[in-house]
Amino acid sequence: MKTAERVLLISLELFNLHGEANVSSVDIANEMEISPGNLYYHFKGKELIIEALAKMYQQRMDKILLAPKSTSLSVEEFFYYLLLIFEVSHLFRFLYRNPAEISEKYPHAARRFKKVLAAKESVLFGCLLSFKDQEMIHADHDQLKQMNELIGLIATQAPNYHLLRGMDINKKDYVYHSLSMILFALTPYINLDKEKFAALNRSIQTQPDD
Amino acid sequence: MKTAERVLLISLELFNLHGEANVSSVDIANEMEISPGNLYYHFKGKELIIEALAKMYQQRMDKILLAPKSTSLSVEEFFYYLLLIFEVSHLFRFLYRNPAEISEKYPHAARRFKKVLAAKESVLFGCLLSFKDQEMIHADHDQLKQMNELIGLIATQAPNYHLLRGMDINKKDYVYHSLSMILFALTPYINLDKEKFAALNRSIQTQPDD
Repeated sequence: MKTAERVLLISLELFNLHGEANVSSVDIANEMEISPGNLYYHFKGKELIIEALAKMYQQRMDKILLAPKSTSLSVEEFFYYLLLIFEVSHLFRFLYRNPAEISEKYPHAARRFKKVLAAKESVLFGCLLSFKDQEMIHADHDQLKQMNELIGLIATQAPNYHLLRGMDINKKDYVYHSLSMILFALTPYINLDKEKFAALNRSIQTQPDD
Repeated sequence: MKTAERVLLISLELFNLHGEANVSSVDIANEMEISPGNLYYHFKGKELIIEALAKMYQQRMDKILLAPKSTSLSVEEFFYYLLLIFEVSHLFRFLYRNPAEISEKYPHAARRFKKVLAAKESVLFGCLLSFKDQEMIHADHDQLKQMNELIGLIATQAPNYHLLRGMDINKKDYVYHSLSMILFALTPYINLDKEKFAALNRSIQTQPDD
């Protein structure tokens, strides 16, 4: 692996574990067992590392967001799709820890982050609209908007919420828990036969090992 | 007003506006136009200010949490009650900005904060249970738990979520918006006649001036 790539992966891990504000360039160099000078040769400051990570996050998320042909998604596939989105967010969870501070300190990275959130919201709303068209969801336009907003709240705030409840968000359990919160919020509107619904519920409740 | 009280009110305002991490004791002294030495005479460090604010928050919230005779609350009163809770949280919103960091830096304050959250959750669950008993809500025990969790997520993460959406959370609009998210999540289960429901919805949508 090239040094620059290693810098990014190790920085990402440190930021996720300790919060971006508590990790300095020197910490990153120490963890990599290279000199701060060598680190500086690759990234001229922490800001550029954050920017590169935000770009990685954007690229990974864009790939997923382009995937669904929302007109043909089943409800089960929609939840699988949400899982993929949650997994990428989980990988870059430091961005979700204190977005206000990240925004202030790293406006470039924040712009990417916000673009991703807007794209995510719009793609998911497209899925909900198509569910309505296919009568897989019974809800008016306003209700779809409120569902989408709840999904957005759960998706963006799940790490902080679960931290607050004393969960270890370095394990992925909270991701499945968040999916089951979304399923609960959508349940009254979903048109899915009992068996399929139970199977979907089970697959979310069964938390695979990390 | 006594100097110590003024310190707390001004600190609270600065923490809410700029985030706790971005406000130093010197900033507080400057804002008050007193010397850092004078500030130190009243509070021996920022930690004690945070601790005193967490205590204020706990006392204000405890007063509200003791209030409801949950066995006689109507759905409308429940939402009014939620509004009171949101308003106190709004007043101390800096605590919700980055709870992980506050926990690490101020364990005493964090313990109070967590106690309040647990009490809040338990009181609200009591209300939901009594709604079920009175058939004002149709849901099984598991659904009530999930409702309560969604309310908890919205209540604790609303400031960060609305910040992320570019809302000015120094205005109280986001509080009403959060209430309407909760109403949406509960709607399929609430047994309220159409007129009453519409009135409740309107009263939440109508955002009074701050």
